[in-house]
Amino acid sequence: MKLLEDGVPLAELSMERVARTAGVGKATIYRRWSGKEELFVEVVRAAEPPDPEPPGTSLRDDLVVLLESLRRRGLASRSSAILHNVYAQMKSSPRLWSEYHDTVVAPRRALAMEVLRRARENGELRPDVDLELAHDMFVGPMLVRALMRPDAELPEGLAEEIVDRVLDGLRPVSSTAS
Amino acid sequence: MKLLEDGVPLAELSMERVARTAGVGKATIYRRWSGKEELFVEVVRAAEPPDPEPPGTSLRDDLVVLLESLRRRGLASRSSAILHNVYAQMKSSPRLWSEYHDTVVAPRRALAMEVLRRARENGELRPDVDLELAHDMFVGPMLVRALMRPDAELPEGLAEEIVDRVLDGLRPVSSTAS
Repeated sequence: MKLLEDGVPLAELSMERVARTAGVGKATIYRRWSGKEELFVEVVRAAEPPDPEPPGTSLRDDLVVLLESLRRRGLASRSSAILHNVYAQMKSSPRLWSEYHDTVVAPRRALAMEVLRRARENGELRPDVDLELAHDMFVGPMLVRALMRPDAELPEGLAEEIVDRVLDGLRPVSSTAS
Repeated sequence: MKLLEDGVPLAELSMERVARTAGVGKATIYRRWSGKEELFVEVVRAAEPPDPEPPGTSLRDDLVVLLESLRRRGLASRSSAILHNVYAQMKSSPRLWSEYHDTVVAPRRALAMEVLRRARENGELRPDVDLELAHDMFVGPMLVRALMRPDAELPEGLAEEIVDRVLDGLRPVSSTAS
């Protein structure tokens, strides 16, 4: 953390240097992390807001919790220079990105897919909906704002608004009812 | 184009080198482009599929054309090594990214916002909808697939499916009607 705060680029962060900064031997570091990638991803996770736990009360409640966590992660990466720096560097290192993807991104996606699968079975989603597409419809708008448009607003209540709008659709009510 | 095909990194692409490769003087290059950023963004645009023209017949038709163009751009960046390479390098150069954003991304977004504004006036969208959010709801799912998940499918008909699903909503029809 200290090395990242000091702005040391990822390419210069070796296990040796981490050990030296921490004032311990290299063996101590290797006992806990098998390599630079594993250590680094754990540092990122410690700096990120904690993973969400969907309450399981309804599709809407679960999705709001998942999207609210994305919103908070977006806000955190804007306010934390470390996180911002780290995400940017991670994207340009295929090995680090793949480690982060496998341990963080993929499980989060699997959790959301499970929430959607259950909801389709319960009748909370149209039975003919493609779950992958439903996932991208709920998560896409928040992801685009949080990660791709650094100037976009991430106001409180955005998670609720996205979930309700995607569930209800954007067509005027009168033309649906007619 | 030849230099990019040969894999020359952006940082090594100078106006001098472009002039030398083209077999002309530097003055000839500068007569047309004021700098490396302008030249580069024009090269990218030449390699990209052409910009879409919404037909103006209905909100659905217009959005399908805009999203289909995003889908094609996603497919192009997967199949073209030049484009793929160029997007990645552009993201890590703030000056290039800002030139590309101002001349390509911002006008495309303005066009989509205009389509949505007209549709809200015409009653094709709920009157209380936030246009920025509506934009991200239509474009987000396609952008996430095209740019953030290189392994995601971009099948034919995806633009139509996203537009119809976002307009109709994902809630089962029975519960809307009750």
